[in-house]
Amino acid sequence: MTNFTDRHGVSHPLPAPEAEAQVRADDRGHVFHSWSAQALIDPLPVAAGEGSTFWDYQGNAYLDFSSQLVNLNLGHQHPDLVAAIQQQAGRLATIQPSIANDVRGELARLIAEVAPDGLEKVFFTNGGAEANEYAVRMARQFTGRRKVLSMYRSYHGSTSTAISLTGDPRRWANDGVDNGTVRFFGPYLYRSPFHAETPEQESERALAHLEQTIQLEGPQTIAAIIIETVVGTNGVLVPPPGYLQGVRDLCDRYGIVYIADEVMVGFGRLGEWFGVDAFGGQPDLITFAKGVNSGYVPLGGVVISERIAAAFDTMPFAGGLTYSGHPLACAAGVATFEVFRRDGILERVRDLGERIVEPTLRAWAESHPSVGEVRGRGLFWAIELVRDRETREPLVPFNASGADAAPMGAFAAAAKKAGVWPFTHFNRVHVAPPLVISEDDLVRGLTAIDGALAVADEAAAG
Amino acid sequence: MTNFTDRHGVSHPLPAPEAEAQVRADDRGHVFHSWSAQALIDPLPVAAGEGSTFWDYQGNAYLDFSSQLVNLNLGHQHPDLVAAIQQQAGRLATIQPSIANDVRGELARLIAEVAPDGLEKVFFTNGGAEANEYAVRMARQFTGRRKVLSMYRSYHGSTSTAISLTGDPRRWANDGVDNGTVRFFGPYLYRSPFHAETPEQESERALAHLEQTIQLEGPQTIAAIIIETVVGTNGVLVPPPGYLQGVRDLCDRYGIVYIADEVMVGFGRLGEWFGVDAFGGQPDLITFAKGVNSGYVPLGGVVISERIAAAFDTMPFAGGLTYSGHPLACAAGVATFEVFRRDGILERVRDLGERIVEPTLRAWAESHPSVGEVRGRGLFWAIELVRDRETREPLVPFNASGADAAPMGAFAAAAKKAGVWPFTHFNRVHVAPPLVISEDDLVRGLTAIDGALAVADEAAAG
Repeated sequence: MTNFTDRHGVSHPLPAPEAEAQVRADDRGHVFHSWSAQALIDPLPVAAGEGSTFWDYQGNAYLDFSSQLVNLNLGHQHPDLVAAIQQQAGRLATIQPSIANDVRGELARLIAEVAPDGLEKVFFTNGGAEANEYAVRMARQFTGRRKVLSMYRSYHGSTSTAISLTGDPRRWANDGVDNGTVRFFGPYLYRSPFHAETPEQESERALAHLEQTIQLEGPQTIAAIIIETVVGTNGVLVPPPGYLQGVRDLCDRYGIVYIADEVMVGFGRLGEWFGVDAFGGQPDLITFAKGVNSGYVPLGGVVISERIAAAFDTMPFAGGLTYSGHPLACAAGVATFEVFRRDGILERVRDLGERIVEPTLRAWAESHPSVGEVRGRGLFWAIELVRDRETREPLVPFNASGADAAPMGAFAAAAKKAGVWPFTHFNRVHVAPPLVISEDDLVRGLTAIDGALAVADEAAAG
Repeated sequence: MTNFTDRHGVSHPLPAPEAEAQVRADDRGHVFHSWSAQALIDPLPVAAGEGSTFWDYQGNAYLDFSSQLVNLNLGHQHPDLVAAIQQQAGRLATIQPSIANDVRGELARLIAEVAPDGLEKVFFTNGGAEANEYAVRMARQFTGRRKVLSMYRSYHGSTSTAISLTGDPRRWANDGVDNGTVRFFGPYLYRSPFHAETPEQESERALAHLEQTIQLEGPQTIAAIIIETVVGTNGVLVPPPGYLQGVRDLCDRYGIVYIADEVMVGFGRLGEWFGVDAFGGQPDLITFAKGVNSGYVPLGGVVISERIAAAFDTMPFAGGLTYSGHPLACAAGVATFEVFRRDGILERVRDLGERIVEPTLRAWAESHPSVGEVRGRGLFWAIELVRDRETREPLVPFNASGADAAPMGAFAAAAKKAGVWPFTHFNRVHVAPPLVISEDDLVRGLTAIDGALAVADEAAAG
């Protein structure tokens, strides 16, 4: 029996390594995995997690630099979240959505209190995809219009409307299921679609492009614009100054609902409750999931402006789900607020981001020939890898797989060997550890990634 | 402080009645409810639940004859499910879907073991709507075809494809979002769309209608047919002999995927693991949610045939979600299997259905002038209320609301006053208590409904 030591220095037994064989057999025999060719994957059996670390059955430890799927904001097995779930399970595990329930109402109130002024009601879902589905539905019912504009290089979830909005290759096999979706280009200064040279120019030109798109699509046909406040999986693309306020202004001008998708960045990832707090531009609807309870129980939702909520005072909302406002999930959300406030999570994210992550990554942009750009905020950063800093040719082609993606695979393997579980996507490495990561672990993980980047440097030179 | 007595005779304190004011204020101030005009509802604050009963803050007890939203198969606060959640929360609350996890694999294996032969893999989702979304996506990717056929008088969930498949008025405000959906008429002998007079005739004519629809839509354009094995909210419509086998045969003939939606009837509602066990006609995909863990943690999924799973061995499946195979949800599912087997749940559902519910309801068809037909199986029954048994005119019009629906509202109020929380829909009362309901409570609840039906009799006579 292997043992592992948690962040409190306590030693725990891991499951016996023999147990791994059963886990592997059950998984390969019976579990159908997301986004995969089932015979071409080899899922790692994980035995335990604690804080920022998880362990496989061989006792190998991995520093979780992707917070699972950027949801584990308070880390593995946070004692307050575990206790809240255990307590709520013992008092009332579930109740239907048409009932008034104490923790459901409390979490809705807590969210409304930290949301921008005027966003007062919450519709709860099971996750982020559904949050975007229902936000779009509210916008369509509210405006009586049908089209929704979203960005290329975005991810909004995988149910039919959510995947139709998505602007990355995961949409391709599902194209047109909701054919009321239209894509536009967002700001991305490093590879500017608008040939801009400064953030201000990128912002101005991106807004002009968006307004042209609105005019050519027909403003009176457009229900909503949905934007990840900081684009997540598709690049940690931080909006340039004035961009989101400009989107707000366009929405006001044309009677369009502005939906901020904060599934990945809400609840502390950027050192703010909501990302829009950092960038201005008040949305009509904010969608969330992941960080609201670190994904300990499936939960997502939509925060709704008074103006839109009021329209549904007498017009029935045409949507719903059995587990809306699930008490177990909401209890973990209420505990999340308690931990954030008691432990100053937002402040520590800003501090660690500014004091540790940003200077370290900026130094890599000098020291590693393969690092083209670093960008981010709080504990959410991207390192964009290139073959050549001058041409900015990506280290691997867009949407590469197999041999074409080999340099990124080699980087990931090197990082894992050094004890870090990295988040990689296309030609990028993202840094997104749990918000509770210790300073020591953060530095240790960054040092491991620094080392693994030698692999990328070699590929860039080759 | 009010007290309530649970099924073990133990007295528990309820929250103080004063607490109700805060619950109500938070709910009305901040919770946006499913399928509702927000200002026209008055959600009841519920303080506690135990077995088949829940209590409001005034200490009023309600026998839950709708199992919440027909999900609470093992009742409120089942000690084994609560313990399983508490234990799993303490060992590993969550882990991402790309990892192999012990309880995720174990639940997938347990489901495959009880599913019809040849259905071996499970794709887990957060609920039933997503289960249907992903089943349709698998069928579309597998066949390369786009259209999906579903029944009028059906409900398949509320995300975009699921609501587009749905054949009840909840679709109307969302029509055409997924425009690859087509509806046909299913068997419903009491109001036969085919002018049939016997179950055999209804089955034969319904199959002929379905085949005509297939031919007129173009067989080579049809990816799937999705059918609730017993239609749930839209009427507890039990398939006549041979119908589902006939659907299977049509699917074989035309290369169409047969999806059985068992979100409501799977996991014991009919006294079988899966409804198809009772009716024949093996599906290619079975969707489930609710009963798999009584909704204690959001969970749903798709059970997949070997033939379809094999197609995704090398072709990537184009779908996924952060919480697929959530450990906390799966742990409650594993515990569900243990309870079902130890306590002989399937056997007791069949026994209570045949020995208590069916004879009682059949007697009402004689004693109550407003009862037009009763139908069902296991612990899932419908009582169809009419103004006139000869003409079969429904007690209230299709999709009635407001004053038009008053007789059904009066019935529900009478049932609640008698201590039963009923499930009503259009002109029907459904009987769907938790599968663990005691015989005494079942009889007591049926007696209360019997009494409340006097209100319907009066309306019928009026």
